[in-house]
Amino acid sequence: MSRKLTAIAAAISIFGSGQLLAAPKNIIYMIGDGMGPAYTTAYRYYKDDKNTKTVEPTVFDSILVGMAHTYPDDNTVVTDSAAGATALSTAIKSYNGAIAVDTNKKPLKTMLQMAKEQGKTTALVATSQINHATPASFAAHNESRRNYNEIADDYVDVKVNGKLPVDLMLGGGTKYFIRDDRNLISEFKRSGYQYVDHLSALNTIEAIPAIGLFAEKGMPYAIDKDPERLTQMTEKALSLLDKDSNKKGFFVMIEGSQIDWCGHANDIACAMREMDDFAKSISLAKSYVDQNPDTLLVITADHSTGGLTLGADGDYRWERDVVANVKASVKHITKVLKDSKNVKKDWESLTGLKFSSDIEKALKAAKSEGDKALFSSINKFINEASFTGWTTGGHTAIDVQVFAHGEGKEHFIGSQNNTQIAEKLISFIEK
Amino acid sequence: MSRKLTAIAAAISIFGSGQLLAAPKNIIYMIGDGMGPAYTTAYRYYKDDKNTKTVEPTVFDSILVGMAHTYPDDNTVVTDSAAGATALSTAIKSYNGAIAVDTNKKPLKTMLQMAKEQGKTTALVATSQINHATPASFAAHNESRRNYNEIADDYVDVKVNGKLPVDLMLGGGTKYFIRDDRNLISEFKRSGYQYVDHLSALNTIEAIPAIGLFAEKGMPYAIDKDPERLTQMTEKALSLLDKDSNKKGFFVMIEGSQIDWCGHANDIACAMREMDDFAKSISLAKSYVDQNPDTLLVITADHSTGGLTLGADGDYRWERDVVANVKASVKHITKVLKDSKNVKKDWESLTGLKFSSDIEKALKAAKSEGDKALFSSINKFINEASFTGWTTGGHTAIDVQVFAHGEGKEHFIGSQNNTQIAEKLISFIEK
Ligand SMILES: [Zn+2]
Ligand SMILES: [Zn+2]
Repeated sequence: MSRKLTAIAAAISIFGSGQLLAAPKNIIYMIGDGMGPAYTTAYRYYKDDKNTKTVEPTVFDSILVGMAHTYPDDNTVVTDSAAGATALSTAIKSYNGAIAVDTNKKPLKTMLQMAKEQGKTTALVATSQINHATPASFAAHNESRRNYNEIADDYVDVKVNGKLPVDLMLGGGTKYFIRDDRNLISEFKRSGYQYVDHLSALNTIEAIPAIGLFAEKGMPYAIDKDPERLTQMTEKALSLLDKDSNKKGFFVMIEGSQIDWCGHANDIACAMREMDDFAKSISLAKSYVDQNPDTLLVITADHSTGGLTLGADGDYRWERDVVANVKASVKHITKVLKDSKNVKKDWESLTGLKFSSDIEKALKAAKSEGDKALFSSINKFINEASFTGWTTGGHTAIDVQVFAHGEGKEHFIGSQNNTQIAEKLISFIEK
Repeated sequence: MSRKLTAIAAAISIFGSGQLLAAPKNIIYMIGDGMGPAYTTAYRYYKDDKNTKTVEPTVFDSILVGMAHTYPDDNTVVTDSAAGATALSTAIKSYNGAIAVDTNKKPLKTMLQMAKEQGKTTALVATSQINHATPASFAAHNESRRNYNEIADDYVDVKVNGKLPVDLMLGGGTKYFIRDDRNLISEFKRSGYQYVDHLSALNTIEAIPAIGLFAEKGMPYAIDKDPERLTQMTEKALSLLDKDSNKKGFFVMIEGSQIDWCGHANDIACAMREMDDFAKSISLAKSYVDQNPDTLLVITADHSTGGLTLGADGDYRWERDVVANVKASVKHITKVLKDSKNVKKDWESLTGLKFSSDIEKALKAAKSEGDKALFSSINKFINEASFTGWTTGGHTAIDVQVFAHGEGKEHFIGSQNNTQIAEKLISFIEK
């Protein structure tokens, strides 16, 4: 290739002109909730094969193209998942708590709704309840993310061209879909949807339309149960969408919902197992793109959570082995230790840490103060032993990464606003 | 452009093949010491014009192309500046503390030395002493970054093709260059170098070769004195290099050294002023590239420092106004308050924060405990008021960003090891 052509290619790919946008038929949009850059970095070291000299790159490393600014439209700088997902689904920034409504609480059309309008098949996959902030912002409109029932209702009521908006839903949330005042599952069934309510029955789903709800609210943490539940749902969703073979293509949003939840808990082992499930789901999506070149995969996060850092309190190290040896979420460990008849044995088997007399003393004191103190004490020992730092139980404003693979990926190279990610995807969908 | 051609272009630019490397004549390599992704994010919000609805992108945003992995070759995961700079200057990872030597303490040829070998003009610019870890790793070899005198000696003794290795040096460090046992400045002068020892005399430098040392060790913090000293040195260096008009081109490494130092101090206002000086230096370099298209600008960081986060302790906000109102480094504020006759007045004018009775009480108590306690107390109030979080007085392992502009920039797109940045630059230099 000539020098001039290389230069042109570079110019186009780095600052891609809107006019050149090719339109991939299928879009796989993946959101790692709370997955700031410290999480993808940590995941690389967490997965490192100690038997090799180099640190192996991850699937994230293979498709990184840029970063995104996450601030909401309310002067806080720090976004929540609702405003974040609204920006990522509608290309409009809103206030924290907003579910696809603007700062005047007016509904904003989402890219999933646009895709449905265009005749594409639509799907939402999450490990949270499927009406949680991120998936909700693709198919519902509400002034508050807390209105879970109203949001679930929208999945039936907010029709697109007279049709239900989402053809396939996989996640948790039976509590909101089967209620005393309204049984949305019956309504879905009447509209021809197949319904399954156990993850073990995932593979009995035969065709789209379908809804699978596998927990009352969010599904259990990957570290505590079904470590690859998102991977399984992703595989099933892609196979169903492929089988559906809609000539207009499909739009699917797949969320690694609980990276954020582990981050809120400042629970590093929990977070790394969520990252693992999300990474494996990405690998499946990437393979799908390789086999279906008319598909674009775009991945980002809505924000970072917890102020995670690798290294803390002046020490220049991070101990991935400590993290890998933890066998349950701190939430679960707390529950076990609370009623444990053999604290030493349970501590050592669940945390992988020696039961020192210091730890014994601290846990005993914490236990007498209640569950919250016990949780904090366990967490502290794991974070200290692994040299993991946290600054908050909430979110932070650091830019998040953008990953892309397949047709059109070059348009996501560089630094961009989160709304610009949505703008580009919408321009593909509307084409 | 055809769809096929666009795809080819994208493939080349994202995963650029080594064979296609064009070789820019001049290389401007800029390193923000400690400048992890939280710093560039913070800087955007810090600089935000509150009179406009959008948050204005920064110079960093205009040229972001990828990220880099910073781990050293000693299983700690967390690098120091010496190992970081060694990787960035030689393409070989080493142990923390290493100045361009490998894990066996064997000297590694640096890209500055290669550039000099190729007949290019070479330059180092820093706000630290010019023999501090980062610049040192481009022109010296030592088993320990602490051997400042030996490192300074190398700038005269480690010749390339019989010539002094660095044609232009601007920074601090008279203490190490003018010593009782050896006066390196006299030696430089005998070799034809012009010497200046005051920043105010910067513009009296007429031509390369030259050395300017403007402080005993590091230069003062930007927030305390000469807020644009790196910008001034960058402007002068680029103008001297341009005037030099070496047909073989030049290689210059420009370091924003003290972003890291403010990070170690967990001093957010200090860090933002260093970022501002570094950003302005980058803008100058970017303009130089625009006017001299045979020049490549590559910018990265060696690591992140302090575990900085925007938002802390559960609050979803970061207050840039608080940061902007601080008028001095916490180090300087400590010095002033220690001997202050009017603590209220000095506190309010230097920090911009109200002198509440809580603050009055806390400062008084801290003062009685000594300087360190007073420093921590002042820092704590500024960090709390601005919702700035920190996890460490040391470094963290988070990936850093990579920015590029000009000929060859497309080769830096994506996720890469820090050594790969050096490999690509070396392939340009050796071409
Ligand atoms: Zn969250
Ligand atoms: Zn440092």
